[in-house]
Amino acid sequence: MAEAWGLDARLVADSHFVADLALCQARLMDRAAWPWLVLVPRRAGAVELFDLGDADGTLLARETAAVARRLKQAAGADKINVGALGNIVAQLHVHVVARRAGDLAWPGPVWGVTSATLADADRTAWVTRLRAALTGL
Amino acid sequence: MAEAWGLDARLVADSHFVADLALCQARLMDRAAWPWLVLVPRRAGAVELFDLGDADGTLLARETAAVARRLKQAAGADKINVGALGNIVAQLHVHVVARRAGDLAWPGPVWGVTSATLADADRTAWVTRLRAALTGL
Repeated sequence: MAEAWGLDARLVADSHFVADLALCQARLMDRAAWPWLVLVPRRAGAVELFDLGDADGTLLARETAAVARRLKQAAGADKINVGALGNIVAQLHVHVVARRAGDLAWPGPVWGVTSATLADADRTAWVTRLRAALTGL
Repeated sequence: MAEAWGLDARLVADSHFVADLALCQARLMDRAAWPWLVLVPRRAGAVELFDLGDADGTLLARETAAVARRLKQAAGADKINVGALGNIVAQLHVHVVARRAGDLAWPGPVWGVTSATLADADRTAWVTRLRAALTGL
């Protein structure tokens, strides 16, 4: 029997549900410094990008690009950073981060940089805004 | 007339030619701490992933996954890190980095971490090894 897909406990604790796309669950990372989505392909056992087959790999690329485009607009970002690292949480997940010149980590990467978590009102507002931005994907 | 593709001067200075794939030029980053390839789509003007059309986006995803798989094997890596940041060099480029538990930046990201450059013999050896590893892509 195939292993059921489930979300790593650290991703659950560190992010908030936004939307289920065709392949990925989109979640808002709980960081006040950057509007930051994480895309988690709903495929059990995937760790590296090449663990996905060609069809899922294509779908992930399209969802990543579409989410990047919409996040950039929703956040008024200067640049989108995309990364799949997985050094700490092995479950395959793709970060899509809205960056602005001069933000907390600029021009360095956001990973490993400590940021405050989102205030409740901000979290609710961003989830609502991003859910609207991703409508139709 | 369409703008001709060319490589950003900082990428030229910071990396060494390995191979031309169907879409991307694969280059070895000049860092002793990590076997590290960068894939540069040969498309003039592309900055964000979504600047590529669907066909090129699919091709980039396939080349990234295939290069990640072969780099992981060639380097005996524990994990591959993939990232498209572009905060400093705007030209669209995708990093594919071989990581080992306990390496210079582990488990943090490699971007922004200072590493020695490759000794001449190591550079030549890695270019040769990776060119062989990417054969047929």
